Amino acid sequence: MRFIHTADWHLGRIFHGVHLTDDQAYILEQFVRLVGDIKPDAVVIAGDVYDRSVPPHEAVQLLDEVLYRIIMDCRVPVLIIAGNHDSSQRLGFGHRLLARQGLYITGQLNTGFVPVVIEDAHGPVYFCPVPYIEPPVVRELLGMRDVQEHDGAMAAVVGRWTSRVPPGGRKVALAHTFVAGGEESESERPLSIGGADRVPAAHFQAFNYTALGHLHKSQAAGGEHIRYAGSLMKYSFSEAAHNKSVTLVELDALGNVTWEALSLSPRRDVRCIDGYLSDILAETPGGDSKEDYIMVTLRDSGAILDAIGKLREVYPNVLHIERPYLTSGGALRGPGGDHRRLSEMDLFTSFFQQVSGEELSPEQQKVLARTVEQIYRQDYQAGQGAWSGGFISKREEGVRV
Amino acid sequence: MRFIHTADWHLGRIFHGVHLTDDQAYILEQFVRLVGDIKPDAVVIAGDVYDRSVPPHEAVQLLDEVLYRIIMDCRVPVLIIAGNHDSSQRLGFGHRLLARQGLYITGQLNTGFVPVVIEDAHGPVYFCPVPYIEPPVVRELLGMRDVQEHDGAMAAVVGRWTSRVPPGGRKVALAHTFVAGGEESESERPLSIGGADRVPAAHFQAFNYTALGHLHKSQAAGGEHIRYAGSLMKYSFSEAAHNKSVTLVELDALGNVTWEALSLSPRRDVRCIDGYLSDILAETPGGDSKEDYIMVTLRDSGAILDAIGKLREVYPNVLHIERPYLTSGGALRGPGGDHRRLSEMDLFTSFFQQVSGEELSPEQQKVLARTVEQIYRQDYQAGQGAWSGGFISKREEGVRV
Repeated sequence: MRFIHTADWHLGRIFHGVHLTDDQAYILEQFVRLVGDIKPDAVVIAGDVYDRSVPPHEAVQLLDEVLYRIIMDCRVPVLIIAGNHDSSQRLGFGHRLLARQGLYITGQLNTGFVPVVIEDAHGPVYFCPVPYIEPPVVRELLGMRDVQEHDGAMAAVVGRWTSRVPPGGRKVALAHTFVAGGEESESERPLSIGGADRVPAAHFQAFNYTALGHLHKSQAAGGEHIRYAGSLMKYSFSEAAHNKSVTLVELDALGNVTWEALSLSPRRDVRCIDGYLSDILAETPGGDSKEDYIMVTLRDSGAILDAIGKLREVYPNVLHIERPYLTSGGALRGPGGDHRRLSEMDLFTSFFQQVSGEELSPEQQKVLARTVEQIYRQDYQAGQGAWSGGFISKREEGVRV
Repeated sequence: MRFIHTADWHLGRIFHGVHLTDDQAYILEQFVRLVGDIKPDAVVIAGDVYDRSVPPHEAVQLLDEVLYRIIMDCRVPVLIIAGNHDSSQRLGFGHRLLARQGLYITGQLNTGFVPVVIEDAHGPVYFCPVPYIEPPVVRELLGMRDVQEHDGAMAAVVGRWTSRVPPGGRKVALAHTFVAGGEESESERPLSIGGADRVPAAHFQAFNYTALGHLHKSQAAGGEHIRYAGSLMKYSFSEAAHNKSVTLVELDALGNVTWEALSLSPRRDVRCIDGYLSDILAETPGGDSKEDYIMVTLRDSGAILDAIGKLREVYPNVLHIERPYLTSGGALRGPGGDHRRLSEMDLFTSFFQQVSGEELSPEQQKVLARTVEQIYRQDYQAGQGAWSGGFISKREEGVRV
């Protein structure tokens, strides 16, 4: 049994004001060809297939086209779970009919807990989809009053799944969640505040493989067989050093797993350049790399007229400039230099300190965490109706300097 | 060959502030049972299945459930075209996979012009879906520079369809359009202003039957075999006298058509009551009819404290009160009495007249028509991205007095 694990496509994403749908179509063209070459037994997409619950219609058409080609041209079944960016109801339209064609979409939790069974020469493999779910929804759906946080919710859901797979059966979990210890990027939307979104990797130890989505860096989480495939593309400058790939997983007759990362080449890379304006402009790059999406950190401390205009003569897709040394006479300004990289918690804590001269007390910290959590949750719930962009994504997109 | 023709479900509609999804689920439950009893060869839904391009997710789930039951439980294939309220791209997601399960959704125009063929004992019947399309889209898709209005667009599209059906083949058109001579209600959104949205019935004469959507009254349009099924429910008080139904169409071996209206009973009727408050309150209704959605036209001319509160003690779902005689000493106030029933053209014309004392010149009328048309079009296009409600639906919903 060989399957390709991918996640976090975020179709329809806007990156610093640039609509990425064309870039996503470019890289998915490679992906479809890869699937056609490898002919795996399945493709598994572990959530956040769209960037928001009401994606632009270009994104809907792109997903339609990609899935059709994988399923009908390559004859490879596809399993998808909803992530926290997807609308579970919208993504799930027609799922029972589509499943009969080899497209298994799990928008809302399948409370029947019927696994998707795909066979190879050694017998069945049981795929158990765990879409992103808020703990209160699990509480209601499964009638478990004691479920308060993501950890308890995941324990409840995974427990149901494992009980539905015959003993000794090979089993693969798909989950969109934050496994404790995983490394974040700047392009994930937090599931909740203050660590309550983490779930221990132990929940997934019983599965032969767990195909995770949510964290945008490709990584193992608590075991080599519990993995994030990482996002399709780099969706923040913090990911400039990532190697984006999809994961080809091989499961033998006994359920032992090996895996391999298969790289995909974006139309334009996402890169960071650090230096003095004159040096950057002097080093004219060769080839296509000057078309990359670029963030420039300028070391100059004085005023510069139209820095972005000058940079764009060499790098037309400079999307963001940072000037940490501006007006500070060459010394780094403030801790970290960029308030956009701080979390809401850190931002407010530093603001409070500046204004009052005092640190937040533990009690005050708790109130703050609850408040921020509440705002995020409202934004999430509003998003289930029609995601408005909200304050989080606005912050992600940053500000052009 | 027997098929059921229905249209204009407008799932997710809000009627004077009331979300109708529960009422729609109630009537669709009847519809599904009807399909199960009759076991037709197909169900045909001629557009405006949703009320807006981004419907509430409850509407998405309702449609998913209804279609699944018709297709999988009743084993009856379903054909759907997009109407002017639907997003052609969103509605069309997965259409090629779904078609293989008997759900034929035509969101955007199928420029391959491949009919949906359903066979009976006498051979094939060719179903030709014509979703709602703006004339500029037809111009671009078919490369026909001379297409300016709906008439030319429909001629071009229907011409392609008829050329694709073998001579003598029985054929059925599905179209979401305004056939000239049809009777409007107050709940349709105009396709364009000033009559440019009308298409002659002659376009459809070659078809054995044309299943129309758009106008909410069940009616023939230019021939007994060119019909509007009418909307699923009454979506404005102007439809209080309508008999809402679906149309059972029978096509014999030679392509002759007979049809029959099959009524559906809503959970709550939509009714108008006209009289003096004291009389209305005195006539206590019996049975369920007091739960109906009601508009009251009060003949009283004096001030009344909390008229809606008093009326709701008897009719809990009074949604709208009109008081045409208020402060006019019993005489009808102004022409028509209700500016909400006037079109934008009429509203502005009357405003212009009041302010300037003069009539609009023909030249001024043209400028006005163009401007209103442009606003509608922008609203339509914005709706393709994410329908915001816009000024049209706000006006439709009226104001509680």
